[in-house]
Amino acid sequence: MLFSRHTYVERRKQLRELVGNGLILLFGNNDSPMNYPANAYKFRQDSSFLYFFAQHREGLVGVIDADSGKETLVGNEIDIDDIIWYGSVESVGDLAAQAGVENHAPMAKLQDMVSEAIKAGRRVHYLPQYRHDIKIQLADILGTHPNSLEPSLDLINAVVKLRSVKSAEEIEEIERACEIGYQMHTTAMRLCRPGVTEQYISGVISGIAASYGCITSFQSIVSMHGEVMHGYPSPRPLEAGRLLLCDAGAETNENYCSDHTRTTPISGKFTQKQKEIYSIVSDCHDLALDVAKPGVRYYDVHMDVCRLMTDRLKELGLMRGDTEAAVAAGAHALFLPHGLGHMMGMDVHDMEGLGQIHVGYDEETRPSTQFGTNALRMGRRLQEGFVVTDEPGIYFIPALIDLWRTNGTNAEFLNFDKIEEYKDFGGIRIEDDVLITKDGCRFLGENRVPYHIDDVEQFLADRD
Amino acid sequence: MLFSRHTYVERRKQLRELVGNGLILLFGNNDSPMNYPANAYKFRQDSSFLYFFAQHREGLVGVIDADSGKETLVGNEIDIDDIIWYGSVESVGDLAAQAGVENHAPMAKLQDMVSEAIKAGRRVHYLPQYRHDIKIQLADILGTHPNSLEPSLDLINAVVKLRSVKSAEEIEEIERACEIGYQMHTTAMRLCRPGVTEQYISGVISGIAASYGCITSFQSIVSMHGEVMHGYPSPRPLEAGRLLLCDAGAETNENYCSDHTRTTPISGKFTQKQKEIYSIVSDCHDLALDVAKPGVRYYDVHMDVCRLMTDRLKELGLMRGDTEAAVAAGAHALFLPHGLGHMMGMDVHDMEGLGQIHVGYDEETRPSTQFGTNALRMGRRLQEGFVVTDEPGIYFIPALIDLWRTNGTNAEFLNFDKIEEYKDFGGIRIEDDVLITKDGCRFLGENRVPYHIDDVEQFLADRD
Repeated sequence: MLFSRHTYVERRKQLRELVGNGLILLFGNNDSPMNYPANAYKFRQDSSFLYFFAQHREGLVGVIDADSGKETLVGNEIDIDDIIWYGSVESVGDLAAQAGVENHAPMAKLQDMVSEAIKAGRRVHYLPQYRHDIKIQLADILGTHPNSLEPSLDLINAVVKLRSVKSAEEIEEIERACEIGYQMHTTAMRLCRPGVTEQYISGVISGIAASYGCITSFQSIVSMHGEVMHGYPSPRPLEAGRLLLCDAGAETNENYCSDHTRTTPISGKFTQKQKEIYSIVSDCHDLALDVAKPGVRYYDVHMDVCRLMTDRLKELGLMRGDTEAAVAAGAHALFLPHGLGHMMGMDVHDMEGLGQIHVGYDEETRPSTQFGTNALRMGRRLQEGFVVTDEPGIYFIPALIDLWRTNGTNAEFLNFDKIEEYKDFGGIRIEDDVLITKDGCRFLGENRVPYHIDDVEQFLADRD
Repeated sequence: MLFSRHTYVERRKQLRELVGNGLILLFGNNDSPMNYPANAYKFRQDSSFLYFFAQHREGLVGVIDADSGKETLVGNEIDIDDIIWYGSVESVGDLAAQAGVENHAPMAKLQDMVSEAIKAGRRVHYLPQYRHDIKIQLADILGTHPNSLEPSLDLINAVVKLRSVKSAEEIEEIERACEIGYQMHTTAMRLCRPGVTEQYISGVISGIAASYGCITSFQSIVSMHGEVMHGYPSPRPLEAGRLLLCDAGAETNENYCSDHTRTTPISGKFTQKQKEIYSIVSDCHDLALDVAKPGVRYYDVHMDVCRLMTDRLKELGLMRGDTEAAVAAGAHALFLPHGLGHMMGMDVHDMEGLGQIHVGYDEETRPSTQFGTNALRMGRRLQEGFVVTDEPGIYFIPALIDLWRTNGTNAEFLNFDKIEEYKDFGGIRIEDDVLITKDGCRFLGENRVPYHIDDVEQFLADRD
C-alpha cells in the first residue's frame, strides 16, 4: 500500500458523500491473457480501484454502500495450489483490513449483494468498463448484454473530482516516475546514432522502466517518422540527417506515471531547416509554462500556443494571412493535429477510460468539433494540484497535406508550395509533465531532459 | 511475413483437408486494453492466425470454406485518421494477397458468412477463445453467450497436428529466440550479486528481449524464492548465500519463443548443501537429453527423471524406501510438483490455449491424475520436429512440506525430519529447449548458458 490506511478510508468517505446513495461497485482487474489463458500480460490494477482500495491483487471488487456506509472487499481466498504456484499471500480479510475496509466476502456473494440492491429499488453505480472479462461478469450479474452496460454519471463525476487534484504524496510519486523517465530519455539520446535501430532504443528504455518500476506507462513511440502520431518502433536502422522522436513514460510500482517526449537529431546536430521548426516547438513548449496557472482554461493555453505557432510558421512562409483568422479556421491543425496536453496521474491519460468529456471538460468548457482542436483532451479551467502534459508538436504528414491541398482546405492560410518542401521532414514534439501550483505551474521531475537546441546539441557532443 | 506465400497457402490447404468440411473461422487478436480502452498492452497476434494467415495487424479474421476452398481475410480498411495516428498501411486486400488469400471483406460481412453457413446446415469451426472481446464478438455472431461457445474438436486436432511438427524454417526462428535468451540469461548471471534487486535484473533482461524482438515470451520469474513456481520479481535486494532462480524467454518479432531457466548462487559460489541438490537437478537435466527421441513417450522421460531424482534424494537422506514404489506413489512430487516440460513454438507453452489434453496427450497416452504428474503438460510419444522444454527442478515448499507431514502423505518414502533442515533452501530449476531430431534430440540455441556447477562458478568468477 502506497499511502496510509487513513488516506484510503478518507477517499472512500468522500466518494460516498459525493455519490449520495446506492451501491457502488469498483472492479479491480484480472489477469489479461496474451496468447493463451495462462500466459497473461503483466498485471495492471485498475487505477480507480487502486485509488480507493489500495490493493494490487487481481480478482477483487470493492463494494461501497453509499447509504449505510458499509464497505466490503470481495474476492476469493487462495488454496495450496495457489501457494505452490504463486507463494503464500495474505487473505482477502487481511487485504481489506489494511485498507480500512471492515468486511470481506467471496466472489459468489457479489451477485446477491447486487440483486438485493436492485430488488430494493436502489441504484447500482459502476464505472465504464474497458476489460471485456469484467464486462461479461458485470453484464451477467445485471442480466444484460456486455455492450449494454450503463455506467453511473454520478460515480464518474465523483471519481473525476477526487482523482483530478493530486495530493502532495501523489506528486512525490509522480516525481519518482519522472526520474525514471529522465533516465529513459537521456539513455535514448545517448543511444541515438545512425545504424542503431528504433526497436533497440525502445527496448533498452523499456528495460529501464521495468528495472525501477512497472512496464512503460504506454507503448513507447520511438520513430524516425515523428509525423505518425503513434509511430511504434521498428527494426529499421536510424538514418543520418533525420530526427528521432521518442515519446515514452515510466510507471512506478504503485502505478503513477510519467510522460515525456524528446526529438533528437540522429547526426548529433540539427540542420538549419530542423532548427527553424524545432525552435518554434520549444518556444511553444515554454509559452505554455508561462501561461498555465489556476483559473486559466487549458483550452486557452492550447490556443495561445496555436497562435504563436501560426505567427512563426508565417515567418517561415509556410502559413499566411491573419493569425487570429487562421487559428479560428483551424489552419494550424495541418501541422498540429492534436491537443497541447492531457491530465496525467495513475493513468498516463488520467481517467481517460471514464470519458474524456467528463475529465477534460465541464459545463463551462465544451469540447471543440474542429479537426485538431477536437483532439484536445483537456480544456477546462486549471486548478492547483492538477497534473497536465505540455506537448506541442509540428508534423508534416504527407497524406494530410495532399488531402487538404486537393480539397483546398484552409488554402488562404497555407502556402502549399512551400509546405511541399517539408514533406520528408517528419515531425517534432517536445513534452514534459506540468504541476499546476498555487499561482502558476512547474515542470515535474528534479532533472530536466535537455530540450533547447543548444542544450540538446551539447548533450549529444558530451556523450562520447 | 516470415515465410513464403507458398508456405501459408500449403498450411491452409492441409488444414482444409484435415477438417474436411464446414466453415473455419480463425480469429486474429485485437488490441488488449491495459488501464483504459486506448492504452493497450503491446499487441500480440494469435499464434494460430499467424501460422495460417501470416499477418500481424489487429482486427482481422481468417475464414476458410473447407468444402469449396474459398478463403477470405476479413477486416476493416483504414481512413485518414488512422493514417495520421498510425501511418500509412497496406489495405486488407494487399494483406490477403501477400498471404495468398484470394478474397477479402469488411468485418460487417462476417455475420452474413456465418449465418449463411448455419442456415445451410453446415458446421462452423472455431478454436477455444482466450480473449474476452473475441468471445463477445463470436457469441453475438452465433447468438449465444460468451461462456457457451463450443469449439470444434476437429479444428483443434487439425491445428495441433500441423503446428506440433516444426519445419526447418521454424527451427531457425526458434534458434534466433534462443540467442536472445542466451543474452538475457548471461546478463542476468552477470548482474546477480548481493544488493541488486530482482526487479532490476528482470527489467534489464526484459529490455534485451524487447531490443531484439518482442516482449518476453512470458512474465519472467526472477526470484530468491525459487520454491514459488511463479515467483515474480520484487524490489527486494538479493541476499548473499541464497540462490536466484531466473526463468525467462524471448520472442522474436515473428513470435517464436525461447524458454530457459538458470539458478545462480548470489555469492558467486554454491554452498556444499546447494551443490548436492543442484547436481541432482543438472544430472536430471542431462538424463532427459540422453533419453528423449522419436517414439519415446515424454511421460516416460519424465518418469526416468523422477526415478533418478528419487535415487539421489535417498542418498542425501531426504527420501527412503523402494524407488519404484516411491515414484509410483508420487512421493517425489513433494520436491518436483510440476512436469519435465511442455511443447514450445509460437506459444511458449505451445498451443496450450487449444487444451493441454489435445496437445500433450492422445488416445494412447492419457494424463495422470496424481499430484505432480498431473502437471506434466506433455506426455505423448515424441516425433521428429517436436520442440519441448527439459526443465527438472527440486523445491522445498514450506507450506507443502507442512501439509504432507501433518497428513502423513507418502510418509514411508519421505524423511520429514531431514527435510525440515531444507525449509529455507528455496528451489532450483534448470531449463533448456530441446529439438527432437531424426534419432535423438539436441538443445536449441548455438550458445549454451552455463549450467554445470563448475561452468557456472567459472562464469561468475570470470565476469568481473
